[in-house]
Amino acid sequence: MTYRDAGVDIDATSSAVGRVAERARAAFGATPAGGDGGPAAEIGHFGGLYRIPSGPDRLLVASADGVGTKLKLAFLLGGDAHERMGRDLVNHCVNDILTLGARPLFFLDYFSTGAFDRDAFDGFVSGLVASCQDNGLALIGGETAEMPGMYAPGEYDAAGFIVGEVAPDRVIDGSDVRAGDVLLGLPSGGLQTNGFSLARRIAGLSGDLDADRSRLAEPLPGDEGRTIGAALLAGHASFRSAVGPLAESDGTIVRGMVHVTGGGLVDNVPRILADGLAAEIDPTSWPVPPIFTWLVTAGDVPVRERFRAFNMGIGFVVAVRPEDEAAARGALPGSLPIGRVVRRPDRDAEQVLGLG
Amino acid sequence: MTYRDAGVDIDATSSAVGRVAERARAAFGATPAGGDGGPAAEIGHFGGLYRIPSGPDRLLVASADGVGTKLKLAFLLGGDAHERMGRDLVNHCVNDILTLGARPLFFLDYFSTGAFDRDAFDGFVSGLVASCQDNGLALIGGETAEMPGMYAPGEYDAAGFIVGEVAPDRVIDGSDVRAGDVLLGLPSGGLQTNGFSLARRIAGLSGDLDADRSRLAEPLPGDEGRTIGAALLAGHASFRSAVGPLAESDGTIVRGMVHVTGGGLVDNVPRILADGLAAEIDPTSWPVPPIFTWLVTAGDVPVRERFRAFNMGIGFVVAVRPEDEAAARGALPGSLPIGRVVRRPDRDAEQVLGLG
Repeated sequence: MTYRDAGVDIDATSSAVGRVAERARAAFGATPAGGDGGPAAEIGHFGGLYRIPSGPDRLLVASADGVGTKLKLAFLLGGDAHERMGRDLVNHCVNDILTLGARPLFFLDYFSTGAFDRDAFDGFVSGLVASCQDNGLALIGGETAEMPGMYAPGEYDAAGFIVGEVAPDRVIDGSDVRAGDVLLGLPSGGLQTNGFSLARRIAGLSGDLDADRSRLAEPLPGDEGRTIGAALLAGHASFRSAVGPLAESDGTIVRGMVHVTGGGLVDNVPRILADGLAAEIDPTSWPVPPIFTWLVTAGDVPVRERFRAFNMGIGFVVAVRPEDEAAARGALPGSLPIGRVVRRPDRDAEQVLGLG
Repeated sequence: MTYRDAGVDIDATSSAVGRVAERARAAFGATPAGGDGGPAAEIGHFGGLYRIPSGPDRLLVASADGVGTKLKLAFLLGGDAHERMGRDLVNHCVNDILTLGARPLFFLDYFSTGAFDRDAFDGFVSGLVASCQDNGLALIGGETAEMPGMYAPGEYDAAGFIVGEVAPDRVIDGSDVRAGDVLLGLPSGGLQTNGFSLARRIAGLSGDLDADRSRLAEPLPGDEGRTIGAALLAGHASFRSAVGPLAESDGTIVRGMVHVTGGGLVDNVPRILADGLAAEIDPTSWPVPPIFTWLVTAGDVPVRERFRAFNMGIGFVVAVRPEDEAAARGALPGSLPIGRVVRRPDRDAEQVLGLG
C-alpha cells in the first residue's frame, strides 16, 4: 500500500507549493523590498525568512483569521470565486492589524483539503498573491495539507496569518477614545466574511448543487442588476489604502479603529471602548446594501441580531474627535458619521445603543 | 431566524476565547518576558502585539503548519488526545523554525469546527499553552471559527503560526553543508504528525466508532505493553531543548538541520543539499520503533515509500563535519549517525540513497 492509495498525493501538493514559491518570487522577490526590509530567502525552507526594516524599535502585530463559510459559496460557484477567497483572506488579516495602526509586513497561509484540487488551489493562491501585492506585504510561506476524510469532495478550509509593525508610541488601541468622539463608518459593500452560515440558511441553500446554483443565479430583490450569488460573494475590501495614510501620517486624528468582523457592530465596537463608555449608533445614518435588506427581511432576523450576525453595510469604523471629523471625512472617501461615543456609567449596560 | 438557528453560537466561542486570553495571561503575562521582549498587550485586540527584544538586527522566521489527520485519532480517543493535538501543533512549528537556527518568539492558532465543543477546544488550548511555555514562546492570539456543515460532528481542523528570530549571520539554511558531513538523527518516538492517512488505512480504521476504538485498544505487535492507539498518538516532540543550545552556542558545529515532516527523510533531507550533493543514509543504523515495523509490514508498504510516508523513527537530522561528530553527539543525547553527505554530480539523480 502507498500513501497515494490512502488518498495523499505528496507529488501533487509539492509541485503546487513549488508554483506558489515561483509566484511569490515573481511578486515580491527574495531581496529586500520597502526600504531595507523584506523577504530574506525564497520559499522552500522550513520557515519563511523576513528582514525587519531597520530603524527605531517597533512592535510586531500579528493576526490569524479565516473566511468562514463564505468558502461554501466558492465551492458552489467555482472559477473566480476561489481567487476571491484568497483576496478576502489577506484583506481580512490586513484590516485586523490596521486597527492597531500597523503596517503589514508578511503573510503565510494554511490551506487544507480532502483531495487536492489544482484549479481551486491555484485560484486561491492567485488571490493571495494579488492581494498581498495590493497591500504591500510579502507572501513568505504557508502550509498545504491533504487530509482525506476531513473535508467533503471539492471543499477546503483556509486560514491566513499576518505580521505587521507599528512604532510603540503609535499603537492605536482605543485607549484614547472618549465620550463625544464621532464614529465614522466605511462602507463594506457586502457581508465581507461574516454571517454566511445564517445567510446560506436564509437563502435556502440545501446542499443540492443544481438547486443551490439556480438559487444563487436569481436576481437580488432591490438590486435587479445583480444576482444573489454575486451580492453574497462581494469582496472583503482592504481598508488599508483609505485608512492607513491617515493613521500613519497624523498620529492624533485617528483615536480608535474597529474591523467589523464576527459579532458585527454590536460585539466589535465595544472592543475600543473603556469601562463607562458606550457607542450610540444611528442605524439609519448609512445606506444599507440591498443584500442585507433582503436577508434580514426574508429571514425575519430580529433587529439586534442583524447587527451581530452581519455588518449591515459598515465594514470598518474610525473614532475621531468632533473637531477632526471634517478632516477625517475628507481623508476617508465614502465615510459617514454613524454614531458617537457616550458616557454610560453602568458597566453592565449594553455598550452599543441604537441597534434595536 | 438567528445566527444560533444557523448553527453559530457567538457567545460560546466568545467565552471560550476569553478563557484562552486568561490562560495566556497566566502563562505569559502581558509584560515583557525574555529580556525586554515579550507580549505587549493582552489577547482581545484585533491583532496580537509583541515587542521584539532590543539588540542588533535580526531576521524574523515564520512558519505555518497543521497536525494532519492525526486529528482523526484525537476524535476517536477523546480526552487527553485533544491536549496532545495542541502540543503537537506547537512543537511542529517550533521544530520548523529551529531548522533555520531560530529562537521562537510567539504563536497564534487557528481552530475551526462545525459545532463548537468546549471540552475538545479547552483540551486543545491546554496543550497549546503548555507547549508554548515549555518552548519559551508566547501565545498572543488566534482565531476560533464555527463553520456549520464544514466538519463532521466532533471534528475540527487546527493550524499553528509561529514567529521566531535569528541573527542574520547565524541563519542555518544548509548552504554550508558539504560532501563528507555526517548526518545525525534524533529519535522521533513515533509518527510525529505525518503519515496518518496511510496509518489509519493500514490499521483498518473504518469510521465505525466502536470498531475503531476496539482496534486502537489492541496491543501493538512487537511492543506488547502498548496499544496501537497509544503508539499512534505518541507526541510530536520539540527538538528545541536538545538542538537549540548547540545551534545557538557555537555557530560552527551545526551545518544544517532537517525536520522530518511530510515527505519523510526522502523529501526533507534534500532541502539542505546543494546541487551535486546527495545523502547516503543507512536505514539499519537506528532502531525502528515497533509502530513503524508493524505499519509497513501489515500494509505491505514498498521500501522507499516507507521513508516518504513515515519518518521511520528519525524526527530531526543535524548535519555536522566529521571532526565535530563526537562533540555534537555528546551535546545531543540519543542522536545517532544515520548517514553522510556525498558528491553526486548528476543533478537529476535521487538525492537520498540507501532508502530502498
